Amino acid sequence: MYCADTIVAPATPPGRGAVAIVRLSGPEAAAIARQLFQATSGPALRSRRLVHGRLVDDGRPIDEALCAFMPGPNSYTGEDTVEFQCHGSPLVVEQVVAAAMARGARAAGPGEFTRRAVLNGRMDLVQAEAVADLISATVAGGARQAWEQLQGALSGRLAELRSVIVEVLAEVEANVDFSDEELPEERLELRADRLAAVDAGLSALLEGFAVARRQREGHRVVFCGRPNVGKSSLVNALLGHGRMIVTAEAGTTRDSVEEGVDLGGMALVLVDTAGLRTATGEAETEAVERARRLAEDADIRILVVDRSVPLEDEDRETAGLCAAGPSLLVVNKCDLPATLTDDQTAALAGSCQVMMTSAIDGRGTDELAAALIGLAGQASEQDTVVVSRARHRSAIERARLCLGQAFDLASGPAAHELVALELREAAHELSGITEVLDNEEVLDRIFSEFCIGK
Amino acid sequence: MYCADTIVAPATPPGRGAVAIVRLSGPEAAAIARQLFQATSGPALRSRRLVHGRLVDDGRPIDEALCAFMPGPNSYTGEDTVEFQCHGSPLVVEQVVAAAMARGARAAGPGEFTRRAVLNGRMDLVQAEAVADLISATVAGGARQAWEQLQGALSGRLAELRSVIVEVLAEVEANVDFSDEELPEERLELRADRLAAVDAGLSALLEGFAVARRQREGHRVVFCGRPNVGKSSLVNALLGHGRMIVTAEAGTTRDSVEEGVDLGGMALVLVDTAGLRTATGEAETEAVERARRLAEDADIRILVVDRSVPLEDEDRETAGLCAAGPSLLVVNKCDLPATLTDDQTAALAGSCQVMMTSAIDGRGTDELAAALIGLAGQASEQDTVVVSRARHRSAIERARLCLGQAFDLASGPAAHELVALELREAAHELSGITEVLDNEEVLDRIFSEFCIGK
Repeated sequence: MYCADTIVAPATPPGRGAVAIVRLSGPEAAAIARQLFQATSGPALRSRRLVHGRLVDDGRPIDEALCAFMPGPNSYTGEDTVEFQCHGSPLVVEQVVAAAMARGARAAGPGEFTRRAVLNGRMDLVQAEAVADLISATVAGGARQAWEQLQGALSGRLAELRSVIVEVLAEVEANVDFSDEELPEERLELRADRLAAVDAGLSALLEGFAVARRQREGHRVVFCGRPNVGKSSLVNALLGHGRMIVTAEAGTTRDSVEEGVDLGGMALVLVDTAGLRTATGEAETEAVERARRLAEDADIRILVVDRSVPLEDEDRETAGLCAAGPSLLVVNKCDLPATLTDDQTAALAGSCQVMMTSAIDGRGTDELAAALIGLAGQASEQDTVVVSRARHRSAIERARLCLGQAFDLASGPAAHELVALELREAAHELSGITEVLDNEEVLDRIFSEFCIGK
Repeated sequence: MYCADTIVAPATPPGRGAVAIVRLSGPEAAAIARQLFQATSGPALRSRRLVHGRLVDDGRPIDEALCAFMPGPNSYTGEDTVEFQCHGSPLVVEQVVAAAMARGARAAGPGEFTRRAVLNGRMDLVQAEAVADLISATVAGGARQAWEQLQGALSGRLAELRSVIVEVLAEVEANVDFSDEELPEERLELRADRLAAVDAGLSALLEGFAVARRQREGHRVVFCGRPNVGKSSLVNALLGHGRMIVTAEAGTTRDSVEEGVDLGGMALVLVDTAGLRTATGEAETEAVERARRLAEDADIRILVVDRSVPLEDEDRETAGLCAAGPSLLVVNKCDLPATLTDDQTAALAGSCQVMMTSAIDGRGTDELAAALIGLAGQASEQDTVVVSRARHRSAIERARLCLGQAFDLASGPAAHELVALELREAAHELSGITEVLDNEEVLDRIFSEFCIGK
């Protein structure tokens, strides 16, 4: 059991509301709570019960409240924990926290409750990170991902893969004093097969990284096309179909306007390249280059053309940009008389889907939204066990390097010791993803992202 | 029992935090909660217990959560109530509310939980208003006032006074068919005495109104004095001694700069008239007039003079303004060589306290802060039972008018019926302060101030 002082913090968001929660955790939580809380009847602290009463500071009433006592080790932190539910007044919350501090509690730092949960073995590091991800999720996809991680899906997969490494390591260590020649050929092959399977498993986790990030931060949908084909109007029409969100990616840059939107539970960042190509000459070349980069980095590309005017070379060039991955061809301005023929459109579209729209009368924008949700959904279809954080990715990459070294060494005349060393290092890297090794700095970095009170 | 549908709303402030609460209340609360919550073990709903489990929507997990069931009629609303404590993620909260609504709950309007508490007799209107006041209190004084009101102090006093009116009314009605001559003189006098006592009681409640408002919104402290005596520097020094607050009164007008500050639990609005008297001639006269009005309306006046320069007529004029009520004379710039003599200062001060300060080196500002807290404290010393809302004040004023009419009628040859009518009206007005009479509009107005979820 991790031994610590008693901490206190509001657990609910700051501001006014009906209810606020102030949370105490640590060896003195119960003793401090008994000084602060007078039950209307019966004892103040009853395990996992909501007891009605009043919060007092030296006999002076602060508020009516409910008090819940979660004795350790079966609490969130693993320590004795007391929660007061008082009126959602910032002033009342401040008074309760101050009264607890006057009786020996310390103001909790960011994520300190969860940090204690980790140190007391109530959850691992990956699950702690999932708590932060769940709280900060802006779209259903991100929340679902965090939920899976909180349930231990990633931790379990990592533990499985690591246990294979540890088994092989044990075998290698058992043979440290012998040369490989003494082992039957098939045993060596079996060993190599098992390590290759681990490597493939790790590789699969890494492949999910980009998609997991998109699911959390939003799929980038880049609208390309000549000026005045209606890109901005289409973006606005789509924004009207969903719920605006603030994503880590959206924003306005010199090159493009980006808006985050939740369409049917999919986070999309709609990138409008409307600002491009207003200049001529050298500047224009540069603008085309920028549009090309945006299209390349996109998850989904939308080429918009104007049905009421003839095609130009520029449309065909942009169609080329869109060939890089999942794309849609949107034939806009269908409210105007058609100039483009179906053949021209089909030639431009190639293998990608064609949508007929009018941003003016709203025609086809439902279908466009549905098609985007579909494309984003395809990109999100994956194993639910994913690596979503750079910290996990780096550790897995380091573990794979060690496995590679172990492979290379094992195929040569190297001593078993060196192979064992690499395998041990690989196992250690995987442990560090979920477990608290002797590195306070990693802990500090992880929990600095948390809000106070979690 | 007030019969209604089932409502749902987040009870905690909006935004991200460790924990959020979603609250359900109404006849279907338990049934809906059973569909949304799967306990880790045992039944989902156990009276007043925190049950661990997960929130699900059609089998799809939303979040880990704690569930608390408060069966009616001993709940806040008087109805069956369920509270889910989930992660403090706006997205999770939104999903839980949506899932409850998909199962028949309706989104609660502002203050609707408390409105139900009133309609179900769990609290009266004055207590409901106190809930809103407590949540919006910015200083300890205001919170304390709301707390007393929530405990029923004002409701109790009003009920006492009203019961006397009702007693007298019963007597009058018993004698409706007789003239007063048939009653012994002493009974008539006793009756008049009792009504006079009620009137005095109501008058005392009204006297507390201004003070109660100050306690909630801040005592107005007006700094007067010639330009360059250091008013703004003193205001800034005092702001440094307390905690800045936003009060209903503070702000910047053309005439003055106002800052809300919490000094030792007292809300003060520091009014700096620094902007005055920069013009000359007619405009100056007007400015002096404005300063006079600010000083008159103040709760505490502070005349600031500069010790390093001779007195002028203007200082003496301003001292006259300050005679209107609680005042302090602040002799500033004590860091500079003195020009004013002690005799001059004493003459200027009259009966009010003199403080020697220097806003430059901080001398005397502690003492000034303490003196202000003392003066504000004196102004706040009062019966804890006060009327703090305009709604209460108007009703009491109307009740007193009726009492006055009853008095006048009783001393003349009027019929008992008319006296009884006025007394009945007075009692009715007092009832309307605490009880829900047949006036939806009053309810709507009261609860429109509330936040959603309370």
